[in-house]
Amino acid sequence: MQQYFVSQEEMKESIITGDDVFHIRSVMRGRVGDKIIVTDETVMYLASISEINKDNVKFIKEEVIQNETELPFFVDIYQGYPKGDKLDDICKHSTELGVNKVYAVNMKRTIVKLDAKKLETKFLRFDKIMKEASEQSHRNRLAHFGGVIDLKKIDFSSYNKLILAYEETAKEGDLVEFKKAIKSLNEGDKVAILIGPEGGIDEEEVTYLTKLGFVCAGLGKRILRTETASLYALSCISYESELK
Amino acid sequence: MQQYFVSQEEMKESIITGDDVFHIRSVMRGRVGDKIIVTDETVMYLASISEINKDNVKFIKEEVIQNETELPFFVDIYQGYPKGDKLDDICKHSTELGVNKVYAVNMKRTIVKLDAKKLETKFLRFDKIMKEASEQSHRNRLAHFGGVIDLKKIDFSSYNKLILAYEETAKEGDLVEFKKAIKSLNEGDKVAILIGPEGGIDEEEVTYLTKLGFVCAGLGKRILRTETASLYALSCISYESELK
Repeated sequence: MQQYFVSQEEMKESIITGDDVFHIRSVMRGRVGDKIIVTDETVMYLASISEINKDNVKFIKEEVIQNETELPFFVDIYQGYPKGDKLDDICKHSTELGVNKVYAVNMKRTIVKLDAKKLETKFLRFDKIMKEASEQSHRNRLAHFGGVIDLKKIDFSSYNKLILAYEETAKEGDLVEFKKAIKSLNEGDKVAILIGPEGGIDEEEVTYLTKLGFVCAGLGKRILRTETASLYALSCISYESELK
Repeated sequence: MQQYFVSQEEMKESIITGDDVFHIRSVMRGRVGDKIIVTDETVMYLASISEINKDNVKFIKEEVIQNETELPFFVDIYQGYPKGDKLDDICKHSTELGVNKVYAVNMKRTIVKLDAKKLETKFLRFDKIMKEASEQSHRNRLAHFGGVIDLKKIDFSSYNKLILAYEETAKEGDLVEFKKAIKSLNEGDKVAILIGPEGGIDEEEVTYLTKLGFVCAGLGKRILRTETASLYALSCISYESELK
């Protein structure tokens, strides 16, 4: 069943507006009476469509659904800005896998350069991808795109655990750090996972991040592409914390 | 450092032929003296390029490299044939994550229909993607595309463990089966993981597979896209077996 996020005001009025109206009308070919799931991130309802208009869809709340689908931690991905449309996929699949926020990070070896106007367009695009993926994967909360940010301007002080995906650690035969970091987490912890762009992480950046408290962690024995690393990390966090 | 797979005969003659010649010449802009890694799947050498010709590249073996990068199990992914170019990504990323073979499976809800000629072209394409990904991720063995096959024609009898990714199991609150299956594996075991296409798995197919010995297993609390499920499963297998 398709799920839609609404604001708390929309929930009070039992109305859906914005892009989801197009989705209901044209993608799902929705009709009056169709069942949907509606949530304002605090409560989730099974609902039925009662009216389909050009600009909005009205619904009737039928019953509260209890369906906990969030990871027990707030995991933010800091992704070295990758080439092409890889960030689209990272935003989409990370959301399915339970990410809280995705940030795109300008690092020494980042190739992509964006001006302010392009940045705004991109921001809206990535956040929309994450909203749609939150709905499709039946998240309780919306995952968000946090923006594009320079590495040295990020304030990591609010996190409980800082993890740097670093293949050199794995090459040296040390493969325990990632698991150790994940196993040490407590419910509600905030975790930042930083992944370099295609060209990898500059040594000076590794030193800078280590001083901030980042743990260097290898993600398995093989060399992962930059767009695969976040999915590996989030899958393992789900495996460790949810499959029991 | 870039890695290349050669046949055992090529290894004897210290020569690289085929598509990799183009890769060395045009993508890597290789020069005589450049270091590369060469393997015939039995032994891996650090080597240096000694000659670059139009149709082949010759190399000098410098030293044997010991670098175990294979999962301790042979994991085959049976992927319900997905739409668009999703199978490209599944082949690529599964290879990075240690898959043995990927098969595309015709199932009741498969939408894509391929004729024999298209199948052959596709086969070569997917296998090439997996060769390149094996090289890029520094695998010891080549991962292969196994072909397109009808579900009911697959012989699963050689596998030690059969896992069906089935979100209905997760919806019922049962999230332990996947972890239980992974934890029960012994070194060298053969594992088949079957993932439905976008439309999911037909109930009749679930019954059929369960009778064959498949364990129905949920992959986390959220609904994953079909192209994300294999990456989740392989990441968790790496996490469980390699990160120690």
